[in-house]
Amino acid sequence: MKIDLNCDMGESFGRYRLGNDEAIMPYITSANVACGFHAGDPAVMAATVKLAHQAGVCVGAHPGYPDLQGFGRRAMELSPMEVENCVLYQVAALSGFTRAAGIDLVHVKPHGALYNQAAKNREVARAIARAVAQFSRDLILVGLAGSLSIQAAEEAGLRTAGEGFADRAYNPDGSLRARSLPGAVYETTEQALEQALRLAREGIQVTSGSQNLRVKVDTICIHGDTPGAEANARALHAGLSAAGVSLEPFRPG
Amino acid sequence: MKIDLNCDMGESFGRYRLGNDEAIMPYITSANVACGFHAGDPAVMAATVKLAHQAGVCVGAHPGYPDLQGFGRRAMELSPMEVENCVLYQVAALSGFTRAAGIDLVHVKPHGALYNQAAKNREVARAIARAVAQFSRDLILVGLAGSLSIQAAEEAGLRTAGEGFADRAYNPDGSLRARSLPGAVYETTEQALEQALRLAREGIQVTSGSQNLRVKVDTICIHGDTPGAEANARALHAGLSAAGVSLEPFRPG
Amino acid sequence: MKIDLNCDMGESFGRYRLGNDEAIMPYITSANVACGFHAGDPAVMAATVKLAHQAGVCVGAHPGYPDLQGFGRRAMELSPMEVENCVLYQVAALSGFTRAAGIDLVHVKPHGALYNQAAKNREVARAIARAVAQFSRDLILVGLAGSLSIQAAEEAGLRTAGEGFADRAYNPDGSLRARSLPGAVYETTEQALEQALRLAREGIQVTSGSQNLRVKVDTICIHGDTPGAEANARALHAGLSAAGVSLEPFRPG
Amino acid sequence: MKIDLNCDMGESFGRYRLGNDEAIMPYITSANVACGFHAGDPAVMAATVKLAHQAGVCVGAHPGYPDLQGFGRRAMELSPMEVENCVLYQVAALSGFTRAAGIDLVHVKPHGALYNQAAKNREVARAIARAVAQFSRDLILVGLAGSLSIQAAEEAGLRTAGEGFADRAYNPDGSLRARSLPGAVYETTEQALEQALRLAREGIQVTSGSQNLRVKVDTICIHGDTPGAEANARALHAGLSAAGVSLEPFRPG
Repeated sequence: MKIDLNCDMGESFGRYRLGNDEAIMPYITSANVACGFHAGDPAVMAATVKLAHQAGVCVGAHPGYPDLQGFGRRAMELSPMEVENCVLYQVAALSGFTRAAGIDLVHVKPHGALYNQAAKNREVARAIARAVAQFSRDLILVGLAGSLSIQAAEEAGLRTAGEGFADRAYNPDGSLRARSLPGAVYETTEQALEQALRLAREGIQVTSGSQNLRVKVDTICIHGDTPGAEANARALHAGLSAAGVSLEPFRPG
Repeated sequence: MKIDLNCDMGESFGRYRLGNDEAIMPYITSANVACGFHAGDPAVMAATVKLAHQAGVCVGAHPGYPDLQGFGRRAMELSPMEVENCVLYQVAALSGFTRAAGIDLVHVKPHGALYNQAAKNREVARAIARAVAQFSRDLILVGLAGSLSIQAAEEAGLRTAGEGFADRAYNPDGSLRARSLPGAVYETTEQALEQALRLAREGIQVTSGSQNLRVKVDTICIHGDTPGAEANARALHAGLSAAGVSLEPFRPG
Repeated sequence: MKIDLNCDMGESFGRYRLGNDEAIMPYITSANVACGFHAGDPAVMAATVKLAHQAGVCVGAHPGYPDLQGFGRRAMELSPMEVENCVLYQVAALSGFTRAAGIDLVHVKPHGALYNQAAKNREVARAIARAVAQFSRDLILVGLAGSLSIQAAEEAGLRTAGEGFADRAYNPDGSLRARSLPGAVYETTEQALEQALRLAREGIQVTSGSQNLRVKVDTICIHGDTPGAEANARALHAGLSAAGVSLEPFRPG
Repeated sequence: MKIDLNCDMGESFGRYRLGNDEAIMPYITSANVACGFHAGDPAVMAATVKLAHQAGVCVGAHPGYPDLQGFGRRAMELSPMEVENCVLYQVAALSGFTRAAGIDLVHVKPHGALYNQAAKNREVARAIARAVAQFSRDLILVGLAGSLSIQAAEEAGLRTAGEGFADRAYNPDGSLRARSLPGAVYETTEQALEQALRLAREGIQVTSGSQNLRVKVDTICIHGDTPGAEANARALHAGLSAAGVSLEPFRPG
């Protein structure tokens, strides 16, 4: 029984600090590093890659829409070709810093609105998969477990990692409960740990018609920029380990 | 007797077209491709790398200051560390498109104000050399022939290519005659060709005290965005070839 | 019988030239000047306002989404509040240059994807109207004739100008025929002139159920960046004048 | 005996928070609001202007170089015309939000590297003064007390406010002691208050040859983004008031 814990990292920009990468890093196994389009800049990328390397955490690229003002959270109508080139650009840019640090780039996880679009829009999902495959077929694409994002990456011959959320309620059909509904976000660390254990052991339970399916979850997302982020990360790390779940990256760095 | 002909390429951005890359490409041996900071965007980079590849032209990165509004021509007081990270980012970003096209990234030539700073400011020159060396020791750094840019790259263990200008007058000390002075820019193709032949055969003649030195020139810069750029490029290409100067890239692509 | 002729202007950026403002200016009565988000920069804005002033052409603001790379043509999911603040910012920024030139800012016409969103999304339309009304209730809002954009502006107490297109076919319901369909774009100047006359005299004819309505058209859009733009503008200007249609801005500058 | 207390405000951007505007606002009389080039965005500008208005604090524009990544702190070689247009654009953009709030724009204080350039480069200082004068001759230009910035503004017929620093040591010639030297920055609130009182009462004492001059100080800069900023602001406000110095803006809002 094993699982990866990932967190978005390197989201500072210029004089602006965001998140608490140093505090969270000890508790995760994979860092998704922003690439300068929705967050991050060359100096932040260099520092974040070094920080992850020192902590023995695997480094992945975290490409987003070209929208710093909106932090990549506003959907943009890019053509599939624009998505492909934007993702290829960002993945490659980050790879400069992993090369400089002497480590491998392990994975790619799209950010924010691009992640959400990839989960439900086949053309966007395929464009991302093409970009990643063109850069390297050794990269692992991280996407919403069970979504079109994962499906498109597999069709492109890429290895994938399905992502689950410890602090979000799931609908019976396997989708995330809308944030606008009550109970969508778990508020206690206990609930989050309980769900993390379930995701690691059983995956996401999906009821489709009369069938009960399970979607495999390979990695659990840790949020690094919320109040109490560090305590939550520590608790999840400790709780999963204590329950016999091995915390392992997709691949040793 | 051989020389490389290089030209800045891929300087379009979004809806904006600049230069006439298709027309110039047949006459050069190395293309310096803008990387999105002072010009270029992911789509333009993808298209330009493909165009160069099809023409058998070697591809290099053309990193600049993060100043699209000023086209990278306004000096900016970046710290050496900022220069290093900005160059590493841009070189790596472009390498994504050469990987996708299945070709090597051959060289790096800084752009505009960054090129000029590198030629005369040792800290900037060293920062660029560090960035290039961290990405790959196989890359060739192109800089102003005889300048600190070349010197710093050699000290960093990089191969270098000294650049000369066919259409600019040189001072006795080997520096370029200031554009504000009469006769600084040659206006006829004949003058440019004559100087190109001299640069290829003899390099730049430098009088230092009572000594006469020669600075080797490995590549000549072709301007692609001036009126008559195509005719000039064709004439230089034909004239050099006719005079027995072999037009060769730094390294076969 | 009178009509306004408007054209998007000042869409150059830094070193990039777009459109041929000098050539088109003599044939129009209103210039929509880009404000630096999707196109334009402070220097271009200053020059364009002066050019319009010298030609006696009324100046309006042409705000767009913050997306220079996509030229404001890619829909972005901004919140109504974000739209409001982005429009207010851009309108105000342009007003600095009309103040400096000693002329009035006359109108506001949203650009590209923002224009299209405003025509069909009531929240976006209202956000734009709020921004304009906050800046000045003397400003005229230009939008797609008969659309939600016009309706929201009228509800906000603003004067409006409905825009029609000389070179685009209309559907019986008054909407523009999709560009993907044959015959959507008129290819000859004669067709465009004929339609311009019809729009000036009769407006857009709309069949709604058994009713025939007419939507008033106050201004016709001239495209400035297509091949033959200058000749088309000249022909429309001459043809409308010859047919007795007075070419007048919304308001004397 | 009176003095103005000013602070840079509205330096957040998108998802990034910087400074603690709410906490500092009660202790100042003038807020310099970033305009979107080096910091700030339309939403932040709208919120900051409202916050200042509610606190009865005068609002000024705080234009900077177009360099978000460098926070406007890196000198850029803009031409005087580029400086003029960039400043006019930013001042006007901010004025949209003061109009919307129903208040006057009172002053303009350049930011960071632009402020420093203006203090020592006459061409830059004049370009800024031209921009401000073109927007409105009622605006007050804030600059380093005794510098070229103030001089150029006065020559342009503008009212000015000379700025002094409570927490920085001055050299005998009236310039600021370089930060690299020991004792350049006062570390205790007592020292800062003592200097603030001296600046308010006597201005900056300047020894020039055998002459002792005094440069008038109209406003003292409060730093809002340092640790202890709020406590310092409160102490300065209380200490100056207790010593009988009236805290007043340049002009009632």
